[in-house]
Amino acid sequence: MNTDIFAQRRENLKRSLKKKGLEALLVSHAANRYYLSGFELHDAQCNESTGWLLVTADGEDFLFTDPRYTDAAKKVWDENNLFIYSTDKHKLVTQVMKDNGIESMGIEPRAMHLFDYDKLYSLTKLYSTTDLVENLRVIKDEDEIRRMDASIQLNHELFEYIEGQLIPGRTEEEIAWEVEKFFREHGAEELAFSTIVGVGPNAALPHSIPGKTKLRENDLILIDTGCRLQDYNSDQTRTFWVGDKPSDRFKETMALVRAAQQAAIDIIRPGLSYKDAYFAAYNVFAEAGVEHLFTHGLGHGVGLETHEPPSLSRAANGVLQENMVVTWNRASTIPNGAASAGNIRCW
Amino acid sequence: MNTDIFAQRRENLKRSLKKKGLEALLVSHAANRYYLSGFELHDAQCNESTGWLLVTADGEDFLFTDPRYTDAAKKVWDENNLFIYSTDKHKLVTQVMKDNGIESMGIEPRAMHLFDYDKLYSLTKLYSTTDLVENLRVIKDEDEIRRMDASIQLNHELFEYIEGQLIPGRTEEEIAWEVEKFFREHGAEELAFSTIVGVGPNAALPHSIPGKTKLRENDLILIDTGCRLQDYNSDQTRTFWVGDKPSDRFKETMALVRAAQQAAIDIIRPGLSYKDAYFAAYNVFAEAGVEHLFTHGLGHGVGLETHEPPSLSRAANGVLQENMVVTWNRASTIPNGAASAGNIRCW
Repeated sequence: MNTDIFAQRRENLKRSLKKKGLEALLVSHAANRYYLSGFELHDAQCNESTGWLLVTADGEDFLFTDPRYTDAAKKVWDENNLFIYSTDKHKLVTQVMKDNGIESMGIEPRAMHLFDYDKLYSLTKLYSTTDLVENLRVIKDEDEIRRMDASIQLNHELFEYIEGQLIPGRTEEEIAWEVEKFFREHGAEELAFSTIVGVGPNAALPHSIPGKTKLRENDLILIDTGCRLQDYNSDQTRTFWVGDKPSDRFKETMALVRAAQQAAIDIIRPGLSYKDAYFAAYNVFAEAGVEHLFTHGLGHGVGLETHEPPSLSRAANGVLQENMVVTWNRASTIPNGAASAGNIRCW
Repeated sequence: MNTDIFAQRRENLKRSLKKKGLEALLVSHAANRYYLSGFELHDAQCNESTGWLLVTADGEDFLFTDPRYTDAAKKVWDENNLFIYSTDKHKLVTQVMKDNGIESMGIEPRAMHLFDYDKLYSLTKLYSTTDLVENLRVIKDEDEIRRMDASIQLNHELFEYIEGQLIPGRTEEEIAWEVEKFFREHGAEELAFSTIVGVGPNAALPHSIPGKTKLRENDLILIDTGCRLQDYNSDQTRTFWVGDKPSDRFKETMALVRAAQQAAIDIIRPGLSYKDAYFAAYNVFAEAGVEHLFTHGLGHGVGLETHEPPSLSRAANGVLQENMVVTWNRASTIPNGAASAGNIRCW
């Protein structure tokens, strides 16, 4: 990716920082760090950061990482503003602040463990912030939309392919592996998340781990999967009937979920509130008397992360804006089996 | 896995809690939660917990999760002590504390974001703890050792297989995919971490992302990979010479890394300090005048996580104990290329 795009994104963040009266933001959230610098999309482990980025409101920006990543960092970051830590991470960050006349900084409270917070707090002045980078990330630029389209397109192709692979006797695990092979052999970098495959009653578990259960003729199978292609994730759920004689109950349930999805699609537009989008689907379930089984939101933002803002739920505040990308009516659990329809829509 | 084993592990934790004078511990670290309950080894995303476990020093224990995981939780946990949250997670946890006469609890500062900490802090009394569950996890039981052995054995088989796949013209990406296919088609649940494949100068990046660089005759290739088999991770690095005419420089460097590894292996035993293990290898590099290129530790614990305590580094305090499992001399970076030897050893 052109490095200019990262500089431009940091300029946008700098404007937000000035508006909030913050001198700087310490970016510790992996996807935010990557979005702003191009350095390492993933942390080594959830409890092991690959690096922190210090973006200042009015000056240069600084990248901190450990020796494992020195060379990788140099590929995307000016060496003069690159700092390598070992056990002295917190001191190093605050020393760089001092050297650059920065007396306080914002932190990301959902991406900073108490351990790091306590260490930094003993050395400098910290302000908790909310979604400063996420608020930029929710609106995708043209390049991001193009990447999202490619990722979503591959996801659609996967579901066309996989329907032909749903052969009685195969296990959930085997289907999950077929999914992964298809994605990887068609250019995806990785799965967006561990594929969920649930057969029969397992299809009612929204996050079932694929196991040894075998597909049987005249049974349900739920597949919830996505890929990361050109850095961007897709996320789609589909439920299939194994064989060509779907039960009436399956057909009815599927029709209901489709109707709920369509009701939401019909009103989608920039300016629609997240809540109203959610209730468009909810009300269809409510009319059918199954709203208590609609146990999750209508959808969620998707991009560098599989789950990212906005959340389209009953408790969400905000309105849809142009060039947001969200999932739309992902799954609806029905007792004794599941029916779901998935869709991802850019507009 | 037998659920008794989880109850037994919680008993061990309860003893630690009593010793520390803690009423309870809120377990938010995913691997710790799984180790103690069998519920969900992974969080949905690093910033999205799959659930919290409240272990009390002197009473029943409680599992908290969101509606997506209700059915999965019921499979491993007594429904009477299972609580499902939506947006009220922090209130629900503290309400359960109150209902059970618990006035304060320990938290895991490296596995709790400031956001959650602040919410909980406004509702109850919290104590920061250090490695209470990790200190149990470092000593593997018989069943864990058996699983580690299986995972490590498959890792060795992978390296035997992959050596035959190092064909000039293939890309780093293609080799990485061969690695993953081998692991998955031989029973592994997933990779332990994203496979690192670096050709030529990329082999000097300890965490190189596999790309389009092609293998060439008479070049180096570094492969750092591991699998998760029966829940347990392995982690091994090897550097190969493509073709049968390794350069003298390669042979010398490889011999040096092997000597450093062997020096550490020669003295390994329960009671050896982490530091002394590290310096056994370090001193071999120092004698050769390349100690400044030994930029990481000698090794690290491995188990449910790829990187877990103990850390075998110059700054580490502690001694090796029976039934710890650690990696041993993983990689050593040499300028203009890399040579490394990997090993994992249980004793």
